[in-house]
Amino acid sequence: MSILRNAKIFAGSSGRVFAEKMCEFIGGRLSESEVIRFSEGNTYVKASETVRGMDVYLVQPIGLRPNDEFVEILFWADAFKRASANTVTVIMPYFGYAKADKKDEPRVSIRARVCAECMELAGVDRIVTMDLHSPQVQGFFKKPLDHLRALPVLCEYIRATVNDTLVVVSPDAGFAKQARKYADYLGASIAIGDKTRRAHDEKAQILDLIGDVAGKTALIVDDFTLSAGTLADLSHLLKERGAVRIIACVTHLLLSEKGVERINGSPIDLVIGTDSVENRNLLKSDKVRLVSVAPLFAQALIRIHNNESVSPLFTNISENVKYQSYR
Amino acid sequence: MSILRNAKIFAGSSGRVFAEKMCEFIGGRLSESEVIRFSEGNTYVKASETVRGMDVYLVQPIGLRPNDEFVEILFWADAFKRASANTVTVIMPYFGYAKADKKDEPRVSIRARVCAECMELAGVDRIVTMDLHSPQVQGFFKKPLDHLRALPVLCEYIRATVNDTLVVVSPDAGFAKQARKYADYLGASIAIGDKTRRAHDEKAQILDLIGDVAGKTALIVDDFTLSAGTLADLSHLLKERGAVRIIACVTHLLLSEKGVERINGSPIDLVIGTDSVENRNLLKSDKVRLVSVAPLFAQALIRIHNNESVSPLFTNISENVKYQSYR
Amino acid sequence: MSILRNAKIFAGSSGRVFAEKMCEFIGGRLSESEVIRFSEGNTYVKASETVRGMDVYLVQPIGLRPNDEFVEILFWADAFKRASANTVTVIMPYFGYAKADKKDEPRVSIRARVCAECMELAGVDRIVTMDLHSPQVQGFFKKPLDHLRALPVLCEYIRATVNDTLVVVSPDAGFAKQARKYADYLGASIAIGDKTRRAHDEKAQILDLIGDVAGKTALIVDDFTLSAGTLADLSHLLKERGAVRIIACVTHLLLSEKGVERINGSPIDLVIGTDSVENRNLLKSDKVRLVSVAPLFAQALIRIHNNESVSPLFTNISENVKYQSYR
Amino acid sequence: MSILRNAKIFAGSSGRVFAEKMCEFIGGRLSESEVIRFSEGNTYVKASETVRGMDVYLVQPIGLRPNDEFVEILFWADAFKRASANTVTVIMPYFGYAKADKKDEPRVSIRARVCAECMELAGVDRIVTMDLHSPQVQGFFKKPLDHLRALPVLCEYIRATVNDTLVVVSPDAGFAKQARKYADYLGASIAIGDKTRRAHDEKAQILDLIGDVAGKTALIVDDFTLSAGTLADLSHLLKERGAVRIIACVTHLLLSEKGVERINGSPIDLVIGTDSVENRNLLKSDKVRLVSVAPLFAQALIRIHNNESVSPLFTNISENVKYQSYR
Amino acid sequence: MSILRNAKIFAGSSGRVFAEKMCEFIGGRLSESEVIRFSEGNTYVKASETVRGMDVYLVQPIGLRPNDEFVEILFWADAFKRASANTVTVIMPYFGYAKADKKDEPRVSIRARVCAECMELAGVDRIVTMDLHSPQVQGFFKKPLDHLRALPVLCEYIRATVNDTLVVVSPDAGFAKQARKYADYLGASIAIGDKTRRAHDEKAQILDLIGDVAGKTALIVDDFTLSAGTLADLSHLLKERGAVRIIACVTHLLLSEKGVERINGSPIDLVIGTDSVENRNLLKSDKVRLVSVAPLFAQALIRIHNNESVSPLFTNISENVKYQSYR
Amino acid sequence: MSILRNAKIFAGSSGRVFAEKMCEFIGGRLSESEVIRFSEGNTYVKASETVRGMDVYLVQPIGLRPNDEFVEILFWADAFKRASANTVTVIMPYFGYAKADKKDEPRVSIRARVCAECMELAGVDRIVTMDLHSPQVQGFFKKPLDHLRALPVLCEYIRATVNDTLVVVSPDAGFAKQARKYADYLGASIAIGDKTRRAHDEKAQILDLIGDVAGKTALIVDDFTLSAGTLADLSHLLKERGAVRIIACVTHLLLSEKGVERINGSPIDLVIGTDSVENRNLLKSDKVRLVSVAPLFAQALIRIHNNESVSPLFTNISENVKYQSYR
Repeated sequence: MSILRNAKIFAGSSGRVFAEKMCEFIGGRLSESEVIRFSEGNTYVKASETVRGMDVYLVQPIGLRPNDEFVEILFWADAFKRASANTVTVIMPYFGYAKADKKDEPRVSIRARVCAECMELAGVDRIVTMDLHSPQVQGFFKKPLDHLRALPVLCEYIRATVNDTLVVVSPDAGFAKQARKYADYLGASIAIGDKTRRAHDEKAQILDLIGDVAGKTALIVDDFTLSAGTLADLSHLLKERGAVRIIACVTHLLLSEKGVERINGSPIDLVIGTDSVENRNLLKSDKVRLVSVAPLFAQALIRIHNNESVSPLFTNISENVKYQSYR
Repeated sequence: MSILRNAKIFAGSSGRVFAEKMCEFIGGRLSESEVIRFSEGNTYVKASETVRGMDVYLVQPIGLRPNDEFVEILFWADAFKRASANTVTVIMPYFGYAKADKKDEPRVSIRARVCAECMELAGVDRIVTMDLHSPQVQGFFKKPLDHLRALPVLCEYIRATVNDTLVVVSPDAGFAKQARKYADYLGASIAIGDKTRRAHDEKAQILDLIGDVAGKTALIVDDFTLSAGTLADLSHLLKERGAVRIIACVTHLLLSEKGVERINGSPIDLVIGTDSVENRNLLKSDKVRLVSVAPLFAQALIRIHNNESVSPLFTNISENVKYQSYR
Repeated sequence: MSILRNAKIFAGSSGRVFAEKMCEFIGGRLSESEVIRFSEGNTYVKASETVRGMDVYLVQPIGLRPNDEFVEILFWADAFKRASANTVTVIMPYFGYAKADKKDEPRVSIRARVCAECMELAGVDRIVTMDLHSPQVQGFFKKPLDHLRALPVLCEYIRATVNDTLVVVSPDAGFAKQARKYADYLGASIAIGDKTRRAHDEKAQILDLIGDVAGKTALIVDDFTLSAGTLADLSHLLKERGAVRIIACVTHLLLSEKGVERINGSPIDLVIGTDSVENRNLLKSDKVRLVSVAPLFAQALIRIHNNESVSPLFTNISENVKYQSYR
Repeated sequence: MSILRNAKIFAGSSGRVFAEKMCEFIGGRLSESEVIRFSEGNTYVKASETVRGMDVYLVQPIGLRPNDEFVEILFWADAFKRASANTVTVIMPYFGYAKADKKDEPRVSIRARVCAECMELAGVDRIVTMDLHSPQVQGFFKKPLDHLRALPVLCEYIRATVNDTLVVVSPDAGFAKQARKYADYLGASIAIGDKTRRAHDEKAQILDLIGDVAGKTALIVDDFTLSAGTLADLSHLLKERGAVRIIACVTHLLLSEKGVERINGSPIDLVIGTDSVENRNLLKSDKVRLVSVAPLFAQALIRIHNNESVSPLFTNISENVKYQSYR
Repeated sequence: MSILRNAKIFAGSSGRVFAEKMCEFIGGRLSESEVIRFSEGNTYVKASETVRGMDVYLVQPIGLRPNDEFVEILFWADAFKRASANTVTVIMPYFGYAKADKKDEPRVSIRARVCAECMELAGVDRIVTMDLHSPQVQGFFKKPLDHLRALPVLCEYIRATVNDTLVVVSPDAGFAKQARKYADYLGASIAIGDKTRRAHDEKAQILDLIGDVAGKTALIVDDFTLSAGTLADLSHLLKERGAVRIIACVTHLLLSEKGVERINGSPIDLVIGTDSVENRNLLKSDKVRLVSVAPLFAQALIRIHNNESVSPLFTNISENVKYQSYR
Repeated sequence: MSILRNAKIFAGSSGRVFAEKMCEFIGGRLSESEVIRFSEGNTYVKASETVRGMDVYLVQPIGLRPNDEFVEILFWADAFKRASANTVTVIMPYFGYAKADKKDEPRVSIRARVCAECMELAGVDRIVTMDLHSPQVQGFFKKPLDHLRALPVLCEYIRATVNDTLVVVSPDAGFAKQARKYADYLGASIAIGDKTRRAHDEKAQILDLIGDVAGKTALIVDDFTLSAGTLADLSHLLKERGAVRIIACVTHLLLSEKGVERINGSPIDLVIGTDSVENRNLLKSDKVRLVSVAPLFAQALIRIHNNESVSPLFTNISENVKYQSYR
């Protein structure tokens, strides 16, 4: 790793492709390692190069096999620390359990906190991640966490490729605050899906749409999608209300096979997302466009390692923390 | 404490009135204690009755002198534990630092997490609180936290006293999800203030209102207010858009003197809130109506102490946790 | 749960059948719960009954999907503790990662320690397990662990069903100490497989057999088997050396499909094991006999819950701890 | 900060003047930061410069608003650590809660320990302080603490400005051991106030004075004073017993307004102290002389940062630790 | 243990005699246990009776073999906790390392804090001890500590057996505060040894005596003595100054053989102490009178176990904690 | 310490000779320090040189006075950390309590885990040790541990000095796995003592010997010996079975005086061991040959300090960790 003194980059089993893109950007090479999954499911990890006194960067999103990928991080952290690594930073483009961030039913777990604590216990010294389901999840970690944002990357792509008059659409009230930021960045108005779900079934009922979309290109924004159910339903409503074109812009594309089919069969014209998770299902749709965030993470890594400020990487989306106390 | 075996209820310096209301509901008496503030600001606490082997309930909101009130909790917890209390539960109707729940600027603290950790370190075994700024704050605690909701209490009061056709108004996108719940409870439609604040100054700029309010009584809902700036600005806009009457329903009323003046000078007809924080400024406005949540906390205390489920106290506002993974 | 005051037994996704057998023995009922595995692999757990102030027993072996099963335990423990359970005991008939108990290569993890620490961090107060790969693993836990032994149960079964003159065979030097205990219990002599493996490949080379087996029934004993490679190789050698019949007695049967085929194709006449792991592959062999250890765990649970000594359950296999210092 | 590689000095709200004196001595500049106290009392801190990988020194005594100043330290430590500071050292010329160092009543808190633990939890790696109420308080910290002494600084000032024959007077038995050290340094004899207080009221009763003061200048020494009650009472008794002049030498001058009036109205001729706490009340008395300890702390900071031994800074007051076991 | 439900009392190797006295007072029996010291020094402990769910009281002073006795406590605590004891309370009449409570030389350990932390880590839930070298040591523990006082027991013995006019003598300034309490209890005046020790050698130089002793019986008070050097030197000076009779009253008598000889050869007429440490050297002097504190500890144990306040046991020596902030 | 930048080597009271051998190999000097054992057993340690910012290496086996030696390590670690050492590494050629690594009786302590945890709590950052009783003990530590092996050093000595045809003999089944490694290294066959001990008495009963030794030189291997009881008994049996010469090769020679006599009176011709523990009893036998492992530890120290891989030092004894999951 020529550009980074005393550092090594390793890839976990779910981060190999992403890590290679990062290394290419940085101009270094990925360190050798071994991950074995035995026939009974037992995961074994081994760093094949010395890490004594080094700052180790492990690239591993928690994506489509979240339990395996999370446990692997625990074992990696322990292995690196017992092998006398100086620090262990996990580059986690997607943190799958982040959405389990509250206890809104009795007797459930706050799984994101459990994962955060276990990773720190196992030896993780720092996390670099992107578009957490809620910014509060950063507070589940005691160690430093750099929270990157896909918004500027995605919006710049949209600006460069879409010339329509846009209205940004939040699928529900919960994402409205984020949608406002996309609208600010793109100089657009917003509309909000107003739905209530009364039961735990997948068929959420969209009651209405607050705001006007007629004659515009609707840009539905969200942080992740799995079944694409909400996106599909919303797209039908948007058509009804006069939207001329529909684009979905979703950071983390975890689409299941069925989800991809739903996209294909819906009035959605285009799905824009990032490569935060490796997902082969995406190959089955022509509507999907992926923007790589590996360069963003690579830049963050370089700045972190050289003790330079990371904030320039997300200045475009500054929030107003102090406002809260004025209200 | 006749009804509660092996329990004692203590009041910290900011929770005396609230604790007495709770004791009245429960039919017990408040335990004796002493809090001294020395001339240089040093806080001294002492339990004047034995707590050996007892389950101690300390009533202390973190409200208008948050640092003193927070530090006092630390000292109480240590005093109780060193005096061999079995458990220490803090009844905290308002947790002032809960709104400092994320790191949306570089180089700031996630103060709610700091407070949570220190309380647990000092000996707190359980927290009972209400309407946290975000539900994720529960995850900053490792120990059990019972998160009560003012919504049913407030909505029942509204139902009983207000006969108008209502539209629930969220002051901004951030509170839209909660506003949807108020609307569901009251069978109302919703509207959302759509504003952007570009700088850290108090004069937030409201751009627009998404949704229709003409001819209806606008019920602005929020979790707390300090300067009432947002409420006042929004009320003018609502009048402009044809709202016939304006009611603000805000759980935690921390109104400063200036905030009360703003309310008095605005088109707001009524402010409904709870007694979660003792605030003498409120006496200066005829528009304010307080609903006591002491009975709610008293019921929670009884259920907790008797190992009965607390969930019936907030079933009306069940959220759909599992939905998240379907999206 | 009539017989156990203030206790509830829950089953994790891998322990339902075992838990039901235990409940039948105890004469109680399994508590209601829900485990959902979302399409992207995310695990969600929920206790459907109150656990406030209760001693919770969770039955969940870490077996054939070890990462999912381990992570599920973390979430269960957190859910129970946040729901104010008094204590959380994990009944774990098999602890799959226990065999990863040392660092015999550079830069690997001691995975059993990682798992132990994370479980305790998540809220587990006690573990009940059986036939750990090494007894030292108990020391990876800070909390109490009850280490049950399958030996008496298995040996009594053998005594009742096998009348041959036995020689107990340890597959290698590492298991020789345990083999000696089986031989003591059954009044048999022992023999030891003496092999060396030079590389990390599956084809371990058996050099020799120390001890005499001619004319006897060889009882190969081991704590677990996955691929049955060692068992099959050893059985051929035993035949060569004159063993008249070959029985394998293995506590934890994790046999893969291929492993079952190997057993079927080998000179092994009978495989005796326990039901510590639910393994459907075992249905594919007529040679397998399972002895249930659910009654053993049920007895342990009753004794633990009633604060009675658990030691009578494993007195037959008392080891001589103090000897060590005399040597 | 030219002289200190990779270090930044920040001032908390109570340490700005002191920090600037230190920076002047060191020849560097104070780093930019922001502290906001919102109208409801909520404290917000922000470092305005990057601290990634740096050793941060935060100057903040816990003085006349101890709760605010202590909580501010917690938030600073968290902010620095989350912003990836390498280490956080708190320069705390006075630690107000240090005097709450024992549990001499039932059911009170050992507040100094609570503060120590919370600071460490929040991220403080080292403390530099002066004249703790008792040296044992150092043991409340797990992290390194450099305990500076005002004695040499104060005594050198006395030597340079006072030519009288001195008798060092301890106000009570509790401070007698320290008084002995002042006497040793100044080559003086000692006398001890022998009082008993029977109740918790402010009017302590001085019974007697052990030792002779007639014809000498009495130098009353103490570590802090708040109301000056003891000093005033003692000065009257000293006059009675024939002291010709009375000087009070007190490290930490926390004098309240009333305390200053008491000094002014008493036979005390001179009060010598340090600038460990910023106290505007002191301006109201002509009798007060302040000696700055900022150079002492600046020297300590330089030595700490350059990994040089700090012990030369307090060799004059070596205590005899090993003696204890001989007694 | 008839009088104490669900409790068991065990004795460590240094506490057997004391524990038996306690059991006699309580009217119960000591539980069976085994301590083996192997020939290479290795300590082995075993509880021979079940402790599942019980409150265990372990009697073990840290006295004349402090390292062995301290390590034994660690092993006991671990053994009890792994055997599922509910709580572990250590009854430690003397805590030998308590005098190592500060860092008054560079690069030494605060050994009392190390011991406190390790005991808590190993599983100790509560400490009951007596006359700690400084009251601040209580703050080294996080868990509850009951700090009993020998003063009333010793003073009552003196009142009952000594009719002389007394002057209480503190050997040095460091113990003056405690001496004042003895004087208050006995209605006596006080005098203070005023010495300086310049080097680390055993021959401390007593410079002078502050206060008058002529014609009175001098009662030297101290918390412990080892070599009796200070006591012997002081007794000569007291004789010189006209004391008619000399009594030493020392809580913890750790006298070495040489120390006993020194006592025998000095003008000291009587040494009064407690049985906090078993010390066979004491048999070699006719001057020694021991008062048992086993009943005091037995009473404390009963009160603790029954959740009654322990404070009545030391009300005679109430200190004035709040005074501190008034000074 | 010329060769090691920013490092200092200190010796505890049991490691002075070993540390000096290491320093000689490294070409540096031992740092100055002081250990005092007061007459009542109290241990006092002091580093006489600054350690600010340095990597400290403390040489201290836990051998023949294990409690004193272990407690001394705790105090050293605390002293170094409070004196601002950067890291503390304990060079512990023998870890006496490592053999107490499991709970094979009810109600005993896992003493090795207790020691490991306390050392880490006190400030130890890394351990370097050799031939732990079981490799699992490494997992009792959370911090990195370098586990050196005496096998290559001892075997090379044997190769160089013994020309006989060897059979490696394990004294019992428990050491068989290690014996296999000695046999592999020396190209020898193995035999195993097959004994059962039924009670806790020192007279273990050897039932038999599995394997053939006639006409060969028997090399008994073990990790430690104390009383030499097993070695002596086994040597008689080996003679009986036709061994022509008997050599015992034991890493840690803790032989008591009686143990040395037993060796002298047995058919054992030679005892080969290391200098891991300083043991004067060994001087009483002509049969003992010591091979120094100080160079091995010195090499490890250099590699660790320079962040070079330590694995080359024990490649000869690579174990096959992954094999486990194939079985």
